[in-house]
Amino acid sequence: MSVYLHDIPLPDAQTRLKQALQEADLWRILGAETIPLSENALGRVTAEPVWAKISSPHYHASAMDGFAVRAVSTNGALPSKPVTLRVGPEAEYVDTGDPLPDWSNAVIPIENVESLEDDGKLAAEIRNPVSVRIRASVTPWSHVRPLGEDIVATQLVLPAGHILKPVDLGAIAASGHQEIRVARKPKVAILPTGTELVPIGSALKSGDILEYNSLVIASQIKSMGGEPTRYPITKDDFDLLCEKVQEAARTHDLVLLNAGSSAGKDDFSSKVVEKLGKLLVHGVAVRPGHPVILGLIDRQSSTLAPSASAGVENQKSELLTPGTSHLIPIIGVPGYPVSAALTIDIFVEPLIARWLGRRPNELPTETATLTRKIVSPAGDDDFVRVAVGRVGDRLLAAPLSRGAGVITSLVQADGLALIPRGKQGMEAGEQVNVHLYRSRSEIEKTIFCIGSHDLTLDLISQFLADHDRRLASANVGSQGGLIALRRGEAHLAGSHLLNPETGEYNISSIRQYMPDIPVKVVALVGREQGLLIKRGNPKGINGLEDLPRIDIRFVNRQRGAGTRVLLDYHLKLMTINPEQIVGYGQEEYTHLGVAAAVASGRADCGLGIAAAAQALDLDFIPLFQERYDLVIPTRFAETDLLTPLFELLTDGSFRKAVSQLPGYDVSVMGTIILED
Amino acid sequence: MSVYLHDIPLPDAQTRLKQALQEADLWRILGAETIPLSENALGRVTAEPVWAKISSPHYHASAMDGFAVRAVSTNGALPSKPVTLRVGPEAEYVDTGDPLPDWSNAVIPIENVESLEDDGKLAAEIRNPVSVRIRASVTPWSHVRPLGEDIVATQLVLPAGHILKPVDLGAIAASGHQEIRVARKPKVAILPTGTELVPIGSALKSGDILEYNSLVIASQIKSMGGEPTRYPITKDDFDLLCEKVQEAARTHDLVLLNAGSSAGKDDFSSKVVEKLGKLLVHGVAVRPGHPVILGLIDRQSSTLAPSASAGVENQKSELLTPGTSHLIPIIGVPGYPVSAALTIDIFVEPLIARWLGRRPNELPTETATLTRKIVSPAGDDDFVRVAVGRVGDRLLAAPLSRGAGVITSLVQADGLALIPRGKQGMEAGEQVNVHLYRSRSEIEKTIFCIGSHDLTLDLISQFLADHDRRLASANVGSQGGLIALRRGEAHLAGSHLLNPETGEYNISSIRQYMPDIPVKVVALVGREQGLLIKRGNPKGINGLEDLPRIDIRFVNRQRGAGTRVLLDYHLKLMTINPEQIVGYGQEEYTHLGVAAAVASGRADCGLGIAAAAQALDLDFIPLFQERYDLVIPTRFAETDLLTPLFELLTDGSFRKAVSQLPGYDVSVMGTIILED
Repeated sequence: MSVYLHDIPLPDAQTRLKQALQEADLWRILGAETIPLSENALGRVTAEPVWAKISSPHYHASAMDGFAVRAVSTNGALPSKPVTLRVGPEAEYVDTGDPLPDWSNAVIPIENVESLEDDGKLAAEIRNPVSVRIRASVTPWSHVRPLGEDIVATQLVLPAGHILKPVDLGAIAASGHQEIRVARKPKVAILPTGTELVPIGSALKSGDILEYNSLVIASQIKSMGGEPTRYPITKDDFDLLCEKVQEAARTHDLVLLNAGSSAGKDDFSSKVVEKLGKLLVHGVAVRPGHPVILGLIDRQSSTLAPSASAGVENQKSELLTPGTSHLIPIIGVPGYPVSAALTIDIFVEPLIARWLGRRPNELPTETATLTRKIVSPAGDDDFVRVAVGRVGDRLLAAPLSRGAGVITSLVQADGLALIPRGKQGMEAGEQVNVHLYRSRSEIEKTIFCIGSHDLTLDLISQFLADHDRRLASANVGSQGGLIALRRGEAHLAGSHLLNPETGEYNISSIRQYMPDIPVKVVALVGREQGLLIKRGNPKGINGLEDLPRIDIRFVNRQRGAGTRVLLDYHLKLMTINPEQIVGYGQEEYTHLGVAAAVASGRADCGLGIAAAAQALDLDFIPLFQERYDLVIPTRFAETDLLTPLFELLTDGSFRKAVSQLPGYDVSVMGTIILED
Repeated sequence: MSVYLHDIPLPDAQTRLKQALQEADLWRILGAETIPLSENALGRVTAEPVWAKISSPHYHASAMDGFAVRAVSTNGALPSKPVTLRVGPEAEYVDTGDPLPDWSNAVIPIENVESLEDDGKLAAEIRNPVSVRIRASVTPWSHVRPLGEDIVATQLVLPAGHILKPVDLGAIAASGHQEIRVARKPKVAILPTGTELVPIGSALKSGDILEYNSLVIASQIKSMGGEPTRYPITKDDFDLLCEKVQEAARTHDLVLLNAGSSAGKDDFSSKVVEKLGKLLVHGVAVRPGHPVILGLIDRQSSTLAPSASAGVENQKSELLTPGTSHLIPIIGVPGYPVSAALTIDIFVEPLIARWLGRRPNELPTETATLTRKIVSPAGDDDFVRVAVGRVGDRLLAAPLSRGAGVITSLVQADGLALIPRGKQGMEAGEQVNVHLYRSRSEIEKTIFCIGSHDLTLDLISQFLADHDRRLASANVGSQGGLIALRRGEAHLAGSHLLNPETGEYNISSIRQYMPDIPVKVVALVGREQGLLIKRGNPKGINGLEDLPRIDIRFVNRQRGAGTRVLLDYHLKLMTINPEQIVGYGQEEYTHLGVAAAVASGRADCGLGIAAAAQALDLDFIPLFQERYDLVIPTRFAETDLLTPLFELLTDGSFRKAVSQLPGYDVSVMGTIILED
């Protein structure tokens, strides 16, 4: 068993796959089909150029409601010297779109025509006038849409490789087509593998892993224009896996084998590929996603010789017909959800694009300032998920969780920052290239909130979404938030920093950490801090005085967190030495993180807010009341961007929603604490 | 019959509709439905926030393949001083994703572990070692994904109003959901009306109008997230129309009545709205699209009192239940295809967005330099379709056809330039706001070609599309092209300007119109010019000498066109006075335009190329051979942007495709005529 993967650089891996597919004559549009022109054609890709069969309009059409005339017979008409035309031989009423009579070559709009029957009235107010009077001449072809104005028969309407939009369908219909040749959708089989996997909705026991990668991958394939098939979970059984892969290969254009691609005991993917065909790549120097496998297997049998491409040469004429290739690419997609999704973007999207004959998707790229240092292996192309927002003059990229298992980091990401191979990370303040998932207009509506975590932020996020704003919040603790504000890295910070000397909140810390920056401080909530403990309090904990007990494992918040300051303040008052507390050095970054540590048994207690206890079904020992404020540099406080946030603070339904969280006091909400 | 529409400003019209819908309690999310989590949920909009039901991971999971250990038992391990751990009580093999044994709190990756059985080998190479040896200590929770690392139960996973992307579905599944509450798709009925309309695919006779607006509108509705129903064409019969509208209203959320909204004799739309409910707006000061109609009609009967909103007040409690409102909005959509499509974007998109609870679509906006003067009525918000490209340092917006009937102008448009109400047009060179349909990366790959028209340009466009470039070509004639190059408004120009003194092509004109600009001139094709005449030559035309005949109507090209120069040159040689020629002043801008004029009988002949004659099934009298060149300023000739264009000139399949056009000589293709 090979433990080490042989990672090759990303461009090399892409080239190897492309070359193998070129040799197998699979690097091209897979095939075409004719479909009726309907809204179901939206998003499909033209397989051939569309040439106009007919012209549009296909006759000279009146562009107005009015009277068709010979232009020459209007010559000399003036306001003071009207010309009268007999309806019938000299003027004929036409609606917009009506064909011009053969003898006419111009249209006089109805509003410029007088009826003779009822002097001075418009002709249109009289039914079938006998003659009409005009007071201005018209030039030939005035108010006429000549034959072919829009489309001339034989002209190019759309090139091949074009993704059909609504108006395109109209132009195709206008040019005389009822059907359209589009690229056939590539069929992609997705096989989740792993004995530990259970389907979505299963009752979970420890060790079970919810299998949702196939859902994400199928959705990616669908949105790329492919046709996904999700197979049921296959257990880790080599022969069964080979059988399922062969079954899928027979009826698809691409097989994706998900999970089993790390080097563990369940790593069947590479062996399956080796058995059924040729392993091209095992391991790519890209993060996340490096254990990716690329191969080419035989569609018909499992007895293909290792040198697959030699066989291909002999079959070339047969392979030129779409769908008859004996070979089919297979990709081993890593099991971690972030790795899986990025592997599909990096390797499968260009392939589907090629098979459809369209351009590969290309995310718009912007340069942004990195808010935090990123450490990255020098040998890898490293894709770091970032939140992106404009704070003042700068576009900022704030790195999100790096964990390959943290799918919420992809959900929250506004883009991917690329740390290219050869670079060993980047420093805070450096400029980084970001591939954006969101439009600039969305990003311009993003409020960057940093600092202390509070559950209210989730509610703010929810309410703001309804007011055309997005809240991107990073949890770095209260002190960290103020420091970030000083560096111009956020629009506001949530803070609950107690001054141990005065008992006052935030003001002295603001002056200390961000001197000379005018701010507005608004109270958000009063909230209860206390000990989060297991339901039923099995260890009989009563308060901070129990923390030094040898049988009690504590879970702490990180340095700089307001809750940490609060703890240290009270420990000092109680003359408890932190070194006596087991787990004092074990740090979590959010209240919910502390709650999760207690819920899982990793710790017996931690200091946090009541809502976090309720969230994870824990007991709560209330200890202190504190105030949680929003700190907003004055230069941002007055911007349109933040207006909806201030409106929230007086919004009854928001206030009600917050008051329903346990331990929250909304009476202070919106009170101005400080305004420089 | 009311002839004049009373156009009101666009924002007023939007406000009137919004207020009427608010009064009817229809300005809100229409309703929600629960759907299974599958790839079909893609693009749907969350109707409620998604809160996590479970944590992910829901147990402490190994993040690596390796051995689970107590961190404390690894203390003191050094490269020179290994520590041995017994497999079972002290170390237990775990795969990535496996739960940690209760007693352990860290994982040592397999590659850092040695087996004792076969000294120096990795443990993974031995099945079931009895003990393992490590040479480095680990800290608690190393290589562990703690419970809740990704998602903590009760946290906000997604806000309401969120459009579901592939990774979102994964996060929703990971947080314990099998289903998702999404906004119900608004049902939109589309009723094409007009006796002159015929379905797509009909054999056409003069006056028939292909009904494809409903296809475009249905596609727009679908891509906005609505559920369209296309009704068959309704003839212009008032009672029938009322009946069909009522039928549609009973089962839909919005009725769109297409065509019949201008002020002609078939204008039933406003009367239908007046009969069935309340007309809110008839005519909006927006171009194209001004004859739009907005109204609110009764869903159940045709006997609603004119004051609809009064009735609503009494029914409010009933209306609060989605789908039970007695009122339903109706929009009369103008008949011209460009007006129709823009009306849907302007009035229907924000409504669908509101009904789905999502943000309205917002096209990214850029400032660009206008290449041509635009005349616009001061009273209207005028949306001008433009081609957008970067030429040198400037982003340029080149206005396309203004005709409301020219759907190809929307197909070709890269964006809409807004000339706001109050402005009477804009000058060339002015900065204009453009709402972009395409991404900046696509626009950066656009080659702006201007000048003389040649059918080869369609082929170039088709071939370039396959090489990640887009050709946007504007036909302004050869001279116009050179002048545009001097102004920096295009990357290249097609030109075939004869020097009447020397018989040489282009060079002297280039020196005249763009002195001091270094250029590269490459021959594209040799082509035949001649007279385009009706099949069978009914007027017995033999050559230019026949043009002065009184029974012959000529159609000319515009001043500055190479073909015009050629004509004038030969007329002079033959001492024919242009004033003798009937139709000399009738100008077309393309070869196909000339051909269409002859094909339709508007003219008897015109000078043009053989391919245009073939395209419209005309006869052709060959007269002259000429050379058609590409003129490229040197500063663009060397750019990556143009590389694929130069490659085309040596591409055998392109050469072959051109040589198959009648009258083309490809032997000169690619010859460098001039290189400064």
